[in-house]
Amino acid sequence: MDQERLKKIIVDAINEVRGAPFVTTGVSNRHIHLSRADLDILYGSGYELTPVRDLQPGQYACNETVAVSGPKGKFPGVRILGPVRKLTQLEVSLSDTFALGVPCPVNESGNLSGAGRVRITNPANGTSIERDCAIVAIRHIHLTPETAAKFGLKDRQVVSLEYNTGNRRLVFGDVLLRVSENFADEIHIDTDEANAGAIKNGDLGLIIP
Amino acid sequence: MDQERLKKIIVDAINEVRGAPFVTTGVSNRHIHLSRADLDILYGSGYELTPVRDLQPGQYACNETVAVSGPKGKFPGVRILGPVRKLTQLEVSLSDTFALGVPCPVNESGNLSGAGRVRITNPANGTSIERDCAIVAIRHIHLTPETAAKFGLKDRQVVSLEYNTGNRRLVFGDVLLRVSENFADEIHIDTDEANAGAIKNGDLGLIIP
Repeated sequence: MDQERLKKIIVDAINEVRGAPFVTTGVSNRHIHLSRADLDILYGSGYELTPVRDLQPGQYACNETVAVSGPKGKFPGVRILGPVRKLTQLEVSLSDTFALGVPCPVNESGNLSGAGRVRITNPANGTSIERDCAIVAIRHIHLTPETAAKFGLKDRQVVSLEYNTGNRRLVFGDVLLRVSENFADEIHIDTDEANAGAIKNGDLGLIIP
Repeated sequence: MDQERLKKIIVDAINEVRGAPFVTTGVSNRHIHLSRADLDILYGSGYELTPVRDLQPGQYACNETVAVSGPKGKFPGVRILGPVRKLTQLEVSLSDTFALGVPCPVNESGNLSGAGRVRITNPANGTSIERDCAIVAIRHIHLTPETAAKFGLKDRQVVSLEYNTGNRRLVFGDVLLRVSENFADEIHIDTDEANAGAIKNGDLGLIIP
């Protein structure tokens, strides 16, 4: 039996006993989603991204990266996530916004209201574009309808999330629940949030409704 | 009446009513304390640091900086805090430990058990030393004996700390209280912790005993 399957069985058993779900954490480093139009400009018309790692169902990290810059700084290797989306969206941590010198709102993914302006460059050919597309993604949890129903949780509910990690225990408030058949159960927090709690990829967070 | 004094009066009034103290936050960026011996090596025998900003009573940020490096990265301008201490101690965030490639423990200030090894360089003359001195300081609160007594709090008590900042509310656990006549009331968290809660210098945290 592989380790991932064993972990799932144990987590399911704990969740049954507690009546509240532990969910696995994915720590998001800065990354970018590109629109079809912007991918065409940066990489050439009809370019197809190269998946290297599966994320949420149907979503994947790509081999391609871009450079992202603002008035104060630059990140050379920002991973592109596929497939293409309706709108180009850069997701950074609050620390990153200071390093770039680009103020960005803490928004739900897909909401570019007030988004920061950055320059996006294909390092291979030097082509670049400027877009108002940079946000700090609000911390959120993806749940399947099955898990949500089991624990009485609802799509768009705002919950708290507890971590017991070494000597940096904490409880996040303002955590958005998203429920969909297209999801796998997973918590998404950024690197600031992870490091504030000494949380690593794969650690378990406890949902507190 | 200046703004700081007005703020203090309002905070005192709120604390009286609630019976629990709000305390002002100081966000610590990476910084270094040097021993007399290491300051002598880096800056010359008997060198006196130049204070530029007062911190806790008797403590100050200096005009001088050092470069700090590890196997994966380098921070060119790390602020020296004075006066000199018994031991050289570099305080970084967990994010910084990854950028440097130097694993560091989350320790109480003054505890260098398991501290990470870094190279420290005076950028002005290129002199450098290697020391096992890098830690992530445990989040902590400085209180005067008066404030502690008023709210029934004790030196070395471990408390929680609540922030209500925009849409990133959170509660830190594992917060160490230190009480001394040499202190001013102040919360010390690092940049990861601040950004996880969208907390800025001067924001108020609520102690939860």
